[in-house]
Amino acid sequence: MSDDRKDDFLDDDAFDPESGDLRLVMKAVDAQDAQRLFDLFAPLHPADIADILEQIGPDKRRALVLLYGAEFDGDILSELDENIRDEVVGYLRPEVLADAVRDMDSDDVVDLLEDLEESQRGAILDALEAPDRDAAREALSYPEYSAGRLMQREFVAVPEDWTVGQTIDMMRASQDFPDQFYHVFLVTPQGVPTGNVTLGRLLSSNRDTALSSILEDSFHSFALDEEEGNVAYAFNQYHLISGPVVDTDGRLVGVITIDDAMAVLDEEHEEDMLRMAGAGEGSLSDGVLETTWQRMPWLGVNLVTAIIASLVIAIFEATIETLVALAVLMPIVASMGGNAGTQSMAVAVRGLATRDLTGANVWRVIRRETLVGLTNGFIFALVMGAVGYVWFGSLMLAGVIAAAMVINLVVAGLSGIGLPALLDRLGVDPALASGTFVTTVTDVVGFFAFLGLATILML
Amino acid sequence: MSDDRKDDFLDDDAFDPESGDLRLVMKAVDAQDAQRLFDLFAPLHPADIADILEQIGPDKRRALVLLYGAEFDGDILSELDENIRDEVVGYLRPEVLADAVRDMDSDDVVDLLEDLEESQRGAILDALEAPDRDAAREALSYPEYSAGRLMQREFVAVPEDWTVGQTIDMMRASQDFPDQFYHVFLVTPQGVPTGNVTLGRLLSSNRDTALSSILEDSFHSFALDEEEGNVAYAFNQYHLISGPVVDTDGRLVGVITIDDAMAVLDEEHEEDMLRMAGAGEGSLSDGVLETTWQRMPWLGVNLVTAIIASLVIAIFEATIETLVALAVLMPIVASMGGNAGTQSMAVAVRGLATRDLTGANVWRVIRRETLVGLTNGFIFALVMGAVGYVWFGSLMLAGVIAAAMVINLVVAGLSGIGLPALLDRLGVDPALASGTFVTTVTDVVGFFAFLGLATILML
Repeated sequence: MSDDRKDDFLDDDAFDPESGDLRLVMKAVDAQDAQRLFDLFAPLHPADIADILEQIGPDKRRALVLLYGAEFDGDILSELDENIRDEVVGYLRPEVLADAVRDMDSDDVVDLLEDLEESQRGAILDALEAPDRDAAREALSYPEYSAGRLMQREFVAVPEDWTVGQTIDMMRASQDFPDQFYHVFLVTPQGVPTGNVTLGRLLSSNRDTALSSILEDSFHSFALDEEEGNVAYAFNQYHLISGPVVDTDGRLVGVITIDDAMAVLDEEHEEDMLRMAGAGEGSLSDGVLETTWQRMPWLGVNLVTAIIASLVIAIFEATIETLVALAVLMPIVASMGGNAGTQSMAVAVRGLATRDLTGANVWRVIRRETLVGLTNGFIFALVMGAVGYVWFGSLMLAGVIAAAMVINLVVAGLSGIGLPALLDRLGVDPALASGTFVTTVTDVVGFFAFLGLATILML
Repeated sequence: MSDDRKDDFLDDDAFDPESGDLRLVMKAVDAQDAQRLFDLFAPLHPADIADILEQIGPDKRRALVLLYGAEFDGDILSELDENIRDEVVGYLRPEVLADAVRDMDSDDVVDLLEDLEESQRGAILDALEAPDRDAAREALSYPEYSAGRLMQREFVAVPEDWTVGQTIDMMRASQDFPDQFYHVFLVTPQGVPTGNVTLGRLLSSNRDTALSSILEDSFHSFALDEEEGNVAYAFNQYHLISGPVVDTDGRLVGVITIDDAMAVLDEEHEEDMLRMAGAGEGSLSDGVLETTWQRMPWLGVNLVTAIIASLVIAIFEATIETLVALAVLMPIVASMGGNAGTQSMAVAVRGLATRDLTGANVWRVIRRETLVGLTNGFIFALVMGAVGYVWFGSLMLAGVIAAAMVINLVVAGLSGIGLPALLDRLGVDPALASGTFVTTVTDVVGFFAFLGLATILML
């Protein structure tokens, strides 16, 4: 995206990390000019300061955090990439860290704590006041990536039989409100949520209106151990703004808001994309060794599958020795299959993630992919057959490559949909490994079909 | 995801499209039992009904829509996949269609209109009342994928000097409120928005509190022609819930809410994933011909690049003829390079999409990718060298494949980051085409390094 476009939505005094201003920040850090740094950072959103910290090297980062000192606040920590958060927490003096976390919402504190090492986690827990500390400890007792971890404990709940006036009076009288909230929850005397009212409806209704008469149509509650991916899906599917979280007795214990769900959705997409490419949990701020280590497993799997494909070629060594043109052409068939398979696979992985690909339509989609593979197979068989004939002057060779192309593109369509669907059915994330497995199938089939047909027809 | 997990967040009476209930729906349709269909659909969210329509075949879809008849409402249309929307609108009687659109929010009407064919668009515009029709026409005059298209025109704005009490009284007196709203905007007499107050703050403040004293810290407004991707980025980055849209004079003309931004973010992810795989705008509900057509361009590009790789092999035909083991092993080097390149590329495309990869850190990341390529290159060179030696008994062959492996994995890291970064700088979406280009580089370099070294060292 061009820089001027990007500027459109930033305030005039906001900071564009891509522009030369980053140099101003670094100059202030190099000169140890704290006042200048405060001035530069004053108009910035914590998310932008976090972006700056992510984009500079570790030495500069340390110098910047030390210089920024007591101004460092918890929101910057919340916005930081996990890998860097650990590092930055280590630079902060204990009292700065304590100040930073004390103002944070409970869900942000938990988000911060869960990724930290044990010793740093202790330091932050010690900095919290007793009730907040107990709340954080309890939140950490829920499974990772669960609704319990995602929720905030601050919410507004009132008895089911209240009126608009009673609710507004209670809110005015109360002091301790969440920073952001969008619904008032109605609860039974046992604390079970039974509905919600948007603040907009509350404000535009008369004081004596019963809350129960202005309930929202759609109301979804989540169990504490609900997986965060399911929560994000529900928010996206049902256009929720906030959703109550209930314990095993059905009692309201927290609320998840759409901004958290949006962040989860974004992380899930990142995961899908990186997993499909076999890049693990990779992030731009990871170091060399960490990155090497993340990528090694799938390179290892790929080596095994590439050797399997080579074993297929080895079967036909004698054929290749007789007709070396086959060695020249064979990667084309494999490559086209790999490309077509990846296309089908991306559609399948996406469809499974959005739950649009289900048992109800999987056979229809498989049928479509087969027909698409057949159609594109014939088209590219014609093209490649012609190229092969012109190149090597053999009609038989052209026919062999054309036939292998059709076979491999049909197999590509089938395996591109079939493998992710199979992984999903087996309870494995379909994004994980689909890429490597699909191209293995298309490599093996491509080499086997092309070299096999050539052996039968041309020797 | 397993079915029981999925059920957790659905109400007891909600519908699980994956379960056998879809069969009940189809049975009702086959029996032309409208009452049974109404009963089955009554507890469902329009998004779930839309999902059902997407998952069944065209014939069943037509039968279902006709049977559901006048019950069909606009929200179902909003939730439908674009391809199917066109089709479904065609099944609806004009008066049903008119009823369906009349209750929709202005942004949803525009979203519906923009994807329809001209004749159907006219039918819907005719169904709207005059002011709504004019509003929709104006919205359609903004560029596609702009803030102007995304915004709703319903919002609450008050003078800057108002108090909480004045605002609440006005809201109570007013009738026509947006379905969902989260902020009250403060505007100058000229209509320029200068800040916003959350409804939560409004409700928990005293009547005589000045609105200007309880403003939100972060306030971002968007130009009418701002690209929707930038809007979604700002919502995600700054945790916005709603944002004002202003015309060229800076006057408030509409508001974008987070649920719309979340939908855009989701679409952008889908685009990135499908583009990286060369699958175009593919959707599960597209037909065979449409899908074939979408995928053909990148298969064509891939054919050209595969032929280029083959031309590299052709240079070494004589070498392969002498030593056919090379033909067996050469795809391994290319495949490992392709895999490593795809890993780097996924990290780069993602980093560019989230704006974490910028001019400030691109060199650091390139350096890292080179070192990762070198490290993994050496590791897999050792492994593959050993395999090659055991397999073919030649130390020289083992050395050649090991050296080629190191070279290709370094090149993979470089091109995996470099090509997307270059495309981005050229103003081309880096997800588009990166995949095909990266694997072309790794194929060409892989074949050239392996066969070239073999020619020099082994003949």
